[in-house]
Amino acid sequence: MPSRRELANAIRALSMDAVQQANSGHPGAPMGMADIAQVLWSDFMHHNPANPQWPNRDRFILSNGHGSMLIYSLLHLTGYALPIEELKNFRQLHSKTPGHPEYGYAPGVETTTGPLGQGISNAVGMAIAEKMLAAQFNQPGYDIVDHFTYCFLGDGCLMEGISHEACSLAGTLGLGKLVAFWDDNGISIDGEVEGWFTDDTPARFESYGWHVIAGVDGHDADAVAAAIKAAKAETKRPTMICCKTVIGFGSPNKSGSHDSHGSPLGLDEVQATREQLGWKHGSFEVPDDIYAQWDAKDKGAQLEQQWHELLEKYSQAHPELAAELTRRLAGDLPADFEQKAQDFIQQSQHKAENIASRKASQNAIEAYASFMPEVVGGSADLAGSNLTLWSGSKGITADDASGNYIFYGVREFGMSGIMNGIGLHGGFRAYGATFLMFMEYARNAVRMASLMGIPNIFVYTHDSIGQGEDGPTHQPIEQIANLRLTPNLDTWRPCDGAETAVAWKAAIERKTGPTALVFSRQGLPAQSRTDEQLANVARGGYVLVDCQGQPDVILIATGSEVGVAVEAAAKLSDKGHSVRVVSMPSTTVFDAQDQDYKDSVLPKNVSKRVAVEAAHVDFWHKYVGFDGAIVGMTTFGESAPGGALLKHFGITADAVVDAAQGIL
Amino acid sequence: MPSRRELANAIRALSMDAVQQANSGHPGAPMGMADIAQVLWSDFMHHNPANPQWPNRDRFILSNGHGSMLIYSLLHLTGYALPIEELKNFRQLHSKTPGHPEYGYAPGVETTTGPLGQGISNAVGMAIAEKMLAAQFNQPGYDIVDHFTYCFLGDGCLMEGISHEACSLAGTLGLGKLVAFWDDNGISIDGEVEGWFTDDTPARFESYGWHVIAGVDGHDADAVAAAIKAAKAETKRPTMICCKTVIGFGSPNKSGSHDSHGSPLGLDEVQATREQLGWKHGSFEVPDDIYAQWDAKDKGAQLEQQWHELLEKYSQAHPELAAELTRRLAGDLPADFEQKAQDFIQQSQHKAENIASRKASQNAIEAYASFMPEVVGGSADLAGSNLTLWSGSKGITADDASGNYIFYGVREFGMSGIMNGIGLHGGFRAYGATFLMFMEYARNAVRMASLMGIPNIFVYTHDSIGQGEDGPTHQPIEQIANLRLTPNLDTWRPCDGAETAVAWKAAIERKTGPTALVFSRQGLPAQSRTDEQLANVARGGYVLVDCQGQPDVILIATGSEVGVAVEAAAKLSDKGHSVRVVSMPSTTVFDAQDQDYKDSVLPKNVSKRVAVEAAHVDFWHKYVGFDGAIVGMTTFGESAPGGALLKHFGITADAVVDAAQGIL
Repeated sequence: MPSRRELANAIRALSMDAVQQANSGHPGAPMGMADIAQVLWSDFMHHNPANPQWPNRDRFILSNGHGSMLIYSLLHLTGYALPIEELKNFRQLHSKTPGHPEYGYAPGVETTTGPLGQGISNAVGMAIAEKMLAAQFNQPGYDIVDHFTYCFLGDGCLMEGISHEACSLAGTLGLGKLVAFWDDNGISIDGEVEGWFTDDTPARFESYGWHVIAGVDGHDADAVAAAIKAAKAETKRPTMICCKTVIGFGSPNKSGSHDSHGSPLGLDEVQATREQLGWKHGSFEVPDDIYAQWDAKDKGAQLEQQWHELLEKYSQAHPELAAELTRRLAGDLPADFEQKAQDFIQQSQHKAENIASRKASQNAIEAYASFMPEVVGGSADLAGSNLTLWSGSKGITADDASGNYIFYGVREFGMSGIMNGIGLHGGFRAYGATFLMFMEYARNAVRMASLMGIPNIFVYTHDSIGQGEDGPTHQPIEQIANLRLTPNLDTWRPCDGAETAVAWKAAIERKTGPTALVFSRQGLPAQSRTDEQLANVARGGYVLVDCQGQPDVILIATGSEVGVAVEAAAKLSDKGHSVRVVSMPSTTVFDAQDQDYKDSVLPKNVSKRVAVEAAHVDFWHKYVGFDGAIVGMTTFGESAPGGALLKHFGITADAVVDAAQGIL
Repeated sequence: MPSRRELANAIRALSMDAVQQANSGHPGAPMGMADIAQVLWSDFMHHNPANPQWPNRDRFILSNGHGSMLIYSLLHLTGYALPIEELKNFRQLHSKTPGHPEYGYAPGVETTTGPLGQGISNAVGMAIAEKMLAAQFNQPGYDIVDHFTYCFLGDGCLMEGISHEACSLAGTLGLGKLVAFWDDNGISIDGEVEGWFTDDTPARFESYGWHVIAGVDGHDADAVAAAIKAAKAETKRPTMICCKTVIGFGSPNKSGSHDSHGSPLGLDEVQATREQLGWKHGSFEVPDDIYAQWDAKDKGAQLEQQWHELLEKYSQAHPELAAELTRRLAGDLPADFEQKAQDFIQQSQHKAENIASRKASQNAIEAYASFMPEVVGGSADLAGSNLTLWSGSKGITADDASGNYIFYGVREFGMSGIMNGIGLHGGFRAYGATFLMFMEYARNAVRMASLMGIPNIFVYTHDSIGQGEDGPTHQPIEQIANLRLTPNLDTWRPCDGAETAVAWKAAIERKTGPTALVFSRQGLPAQSRTDEQLANVARGGYVLVDCQGQPDVILIATGSEVGVAVEAAAKLSDKGHSVRVVSMPSTTVFDAQDQDYKDSVLPKNVSKRVAVEAAHVDFWHKYVGFDGAIVGMTTFGESAPGGALLKHFGITADAVVDAAQGIL
């Protein structure tokens, strides 16, 4: 029977061979962590290579995602649908083995990693999701939700600030089934980390309330196995296993050095490494006995079968819970969602309340979450400002995770990374909020949700200079454009209660990507709509106010500026101009409509157009062209009451009138 | 003589009065930290209210910037040019007292704070600058650079990830003259922090190598004074003084609660607080004896005078050093900068090397930094990829800060916040680098540099899908537009060595704001230019290739796509079209040119324009209008060799030809 070391060497050989063949990549981490991975995957991981979607599988996250050949090797060796040809195509177009593990490419990759520190944050989110789902569904004798989340991470992840945010909260929430492995190899890209990274990491994690197992030799399988056993036995705290490793283990001339971090070893060194490791097999060759020993398909099938048997019994004992769990894991909406949502939209239109859109958002949360227990909310310490709490909100704690709300603390990036983990786990639909400005703190996690297609709902309030006195540090200018330009992110900036109700519905219905909902701090006037107009809100842009015949000018506005445009249109009409007002709550959704519809809203032969939005003007050239005008911002804001600022910066009906007359 | 408590109560009264008058703001933190502030400012702070620019002053940073009335009260009371009328105008348009402390408004505000965690990062940067400047200029008997950096911060700053990044590095670098005060009041906006923030903060900072003074009663002046003395006595490590305080101290009904955090106390409670504090004076009234006791003008003038006397002696003993220090503190360029820069630009043009623009950037750093000792470089652990090291680079360490390079570790946000602090301190010009994608991790610090007008140089390499195998997590799409839309940020994306040399010169010459320099990983062809064309590079956009007479079509390109456009132009010319190629390395700089110049480059009557850039297409509507076309990206990238990706995504000369023919 192959030794543990021989099994680990299969990872090492595949990793260095694939990086060599691609002539790019990172052999050091997979070679350094191979022994740890062998112990974890051979002895502990509950997974079924034939069904990477098995809901109760243990999650494995490679937060140091540049070491992607580690996870590709593991998936290949244990029997996932990732044949050796894919490893030979490492980092090539249309392969399943991109340079970093990308969600949706290789089966068994739980999340896209590479941007450092986000993988551990996703892992925290997955562990939270497991804990919450277990608290909501498990019954005496039926631990139907019961899995671990394992995460490998490196020095880079630990230096990143997001690791502080996510791991601090993981300690507070007592995530006993989260187990992290620090690849303590003393090396980062610039060399030996002692010049820039001198944290006492075990003490740091103890300060977060973690169970820390320090000083584990990452090349001693028995020590690693003992540490994992101790980690699993500790149920109240997350565990950090600190593994001393040698980067590029096995390479006679490059191990222990950053030379093995991010470049191929070179053909000679690959050969020398084979010799040092005693690996007598050719490039990409793995002997049958080693494949056989790694193969996890039978064991995995058994594990999943046992779980299905438990689920069957659970379904008999708790049929309603079982049906609900099944629905939620499938990501299906409640059967009556469409009807209830339409009712709420109609109500919102008829109520015609003049309220801040953040308040309208709270109303929408109340309406939708009240019949969607999968909705889990939160805010980065701004619940009372973002208006993210509703009457059924219940915070989760270390001792009681049965709630539906997470007090994330002042941790925007951590919140967003955690939300991504919750979304990937399944069973929940997460919304999380901060001020629109502080989206920037979390920006790359929003992008990661977009890249992975996670249907998270990011709620951003205080969306312009209209927020007022907090001043330019809190007043978004270029942020909305940044959201709109992010591929696969839908962005909504509704103008009143009805548009907000539609925006929330769209966000909830979306399955293929995240949605950013952008709301005002200040009150906004409700707009009148016909049934047809109300139905067209969902198309992202529609004619809100129209004129007889062809318009002389079209005013295009979003959010708090729709009321401004409507007022300006009345003034222009008084002056004898034919004016159309287009409300454009979502440019991304509008752009995706068929050309006929878009042309009906913005006819090609009407080139006189004025866009108005209390945000950066440059975004709007796309819709107004060279003949149009834009009323918006080009500078930072100031500190003053919001009304004074809108006037000071010329976001007014009169300014829109002037702009329109300037081009007519 | 007024007691310490009475002096502190002046802060409390002014703070609650100003917030009440503005009917918005944050009274809790100023009232909670008033006693600490009184001890620090009355007993320890070296500053001169008459000259807020005195280079050797102690720096004071209010990282919990929402408590702005604390610093406004201190500045007013100690004698800065901040009259009581300004406090009465708190949070009003054109006052010097915006909602958060804004750099450049009230004299004595060292940095803009409000976005949590960035103030402490700026403070770390200021302490690094002090330590480096002292190492470079102090001589035996002449501690000409010798001041402390004090920073107040709250739970919010400590939860933010950037506090981890900056404070970890502060520990590594042994910043003995950095003293932080944690306002441990147990409250954040959502309420009592125990539900979401349970770190053992003293242990956390000890794990960073800080000197931690735990358990200080923040309302016991003697205890605070003793702690500050101990902090100053510790010269090898930064100090964290953990001060237990009561938020809203003095308010009988709202102290100790988040009700005092972010809202006016209310008129009744303001009155009740006056009574509880024994403050018998009217709104905005401070008795003369309390003013007199706070007044720091005489002491400050003496301190600065003593320093000038020392400087005078230093100038005699070390005239060259003194002249250089004076130049650097004034922010003046070396006298021969212009000549040397022009020589380098000419050389770069004539060398005509086909190299990656990141390599051209390294050449530019070598050229400029070699005669500018104020240039301090760094990278977030990507020196070998960003190419930020030059032959004269010397890293700083805890024991030797005389170098000119900071190994920031994997800390993009911390790096950028620290750079902002270095820039604000004076004496240095900082550049710092990461991959363009990971600008997003640091995004809000880049914005803060723009808002404050700090002339930092942010170097971003691996700027498009052209970077290749690392895949979509590492391939910028929407990031360049995000930079360009940021007010007061100049963004350059040069196409070859000569444009890179010009871009670096512009970045160094800029005094009123930061510059982002965006570079390719891959090699780029050098372009031919006449002297006039070379001179016009500095205008941000210019005609690189022209035709006889009026162009049929103008191709506009930046960076790695300029070569693509030139190739496309040749093909189109072969087909009989008159084609102009405009290279547009900086849209922000081009936009700032006079209209005649802009019209000469992009004539209004040539509406057939094709923009080409391996980035999001939507930015370019501004330059091509409805009649034009854009060759660029609308989706995320993929993992594959860069050349394969550019072909796959259609960033090719043939695609540009097709686009041009499509509109002709």
